[in-house]
Amino acid sequence: MDIKKEHAIGILDSGVGGLTVAKEVMRQLPQEAIIYLGDTKRCPYGPRTKEEVKKFTLEIVHFLSQFPLKALVIACNTATAAALHEVRLQIPIPVLGVIKPGVRAAIKATKQHRIGVIGTQGTIQSQAYEQALKRIHPEIEVYSVACPQFAPLVENGLHQSELAEKVVAEGLAPFQNISIDTLILGCTHYPLLAESIAKVMGEKVEIISSAEETAAELSTILQHQSLLAYDYTPDHHFFTTGDPHSFKKIAETWLGQTIKIEQARLEPVQKISF
Amino acid sequence: MDIKKEHAIGILDSGVGGLTVAKEVMRQLPQEAIIYLGDTKRCPYGPRTKEEVKKFTLEIVHFLSQFPLKALVIACNTATAAALHEVRLQIPIPVLGVIKPGVRAAIKATKQHRIGVIGTQGTIQSQAYEQALKRIHPEIEVYSVACPQFAPLVENGLHQSELAEKVVAEGLAPFQNISIDTLILGCTHYPLLAESIAKVMGEKVEIISSAEETAAELSTILQHQSLLAYDYTPDHHFFTTGDPHSFKKIAETWLGQTIKIEQARLEPVQKISF
Repeated sequence: MDIKKEHAIGILDSGVGGLTVAKEVMRQLPQEAIIYLGDTKRCPYGPRTKEEVKKFTLEIVHFLSQFPLKALVIACNTATAAALHEVRLQIPIPVLGVIKPGVRAAIKATKQHRIGVIGTQGTIQSQAYEQALKRIHPEIEVYSVACPQFAPLVENGLHQSELAEKVVAEGLAPFQNISIDTLILGCTHYPLLAESIAKVMGEKVEIISSAEETAAELSTILQHQSLLAYDYTPDHHFFTTGDPHSFKKIAETWLGQTIKIEQARLEPVQKISF
Repeated sequence: MDIKKEHAIGILDSGVGGLTVAKEVMRQLPQEAIIYLGDTKRCPYGPRTKEEVKKFTLEIVHFLSQFPLKALVIACNTATAAALHEVRLQIPIPVLGVIKPGVRAAIKATKQHRIGVIGTQGTIQSQAYEQALKRIHPEIEVYSVACPQFAPLVENGLHQSELAEKVVAEGLAPFQNISIDTLILGCTHYPLLAESIAKVMGEKVEIISSAEETAAELSTILQHQSLLAYDYTPDHHFFTTGDPHSFKKIAETWLGQTIKIEQARLEPVQKISF
């Protein structure tokens, strides 16, 4: 299949977290069409095994590959750590994860070479951030903390509650005794907690949102492959494996616009045909 | 020729301005080797015609192509505007300019969609920034101001003088009556004037350095092509068409390290053999 400028960007996530990436793509690349799938039914991915997350991710890629896509964003850190490499082998379009863009932005931002990373248990256990940071810049010190309570807060619409402030403060407590100058939000749900996180970390710590950086990196990749949409008014489509009504409610609040949402039925897949 | 991870990054500029890009590449990608050429003898490029700048740029690319390169950065806005497209046609490695990285960072940063651009006369007249910004985001308002006095200040080592403060304030005067929230330093010399520029523009305007953004974008492109250097202690080489002693003095002050510098003799070129 010919890859064309007017084809869409596929974005996948374990649930609603990847909407922070979708929102940034809409903001930074307003001419690009998005086809989003949130696997809300099986969310969260964080506590699952790598094999399971890889299997689920390939099922979503299989579903999305029925549409004409020019690039795919794995907008979930857990799925990026578990499946990015495999997905790249399976489909002939650029595939972006959310880990490397955050890594590059953190390297750009840090002055003391001391970077913190927060994420789900799966992401932190994979050491994907630590490896990616040291792969590019071996002298960087990385301090990783799993915050398994954060994503469920957001997924349940509680990110602006008092409970959220309390949970965030507790989750970030390990950083009280560690001096860092940059903190990577290593989960696409976390930009919705950014205000509480910034309050706890203080002004001197720069907070890196993978969502913002991934959208900018998508722009780079599309431009270098001459695939940026031009003079195009996009039409976005959203799918969820869970309840479309609650997904629509959260999505429209976050994105600030009405969306079309359909339920998707995923199937076990051996090989993706693209 | 096979392109290998251990090959160098070619960086070219009309003079010393591109050293701000070289410095950022060293900081963000400390395992990458750099081969730099500054065409100090024919600097500045800003007031020259597009045809002349294109001819000079191709001569430099011809010179640099005698070394094993895996990517090339045109670290001069004037040369990017005049010759990027032509250089991409001539050599089979990724070629990055300094315009698009700044454009993307500005789109990421702006909240009011009002972006200022300062650059040499050649860059501003080319409208390269305006076109690139509107190509990606048609609703952005762009306010461009040529500051032909800025680069010569830096090229003559006067960027920390009282004269510099005065010249910067005068050059930026047109922005007194224009409300912008983001300013692109559209010339690689300008990061050395960043402090004076920030003072004039005030805290509410985010200053975008193409040098920082270009190095981050180089990281993206190398990684997506599996060309990032790994476990490698690089050796950098610098060439100038002008006086090596004065180049060495400025370069070592800016880069904070001693460098090897040689004089390069450029020749007219019809076609680049790579």
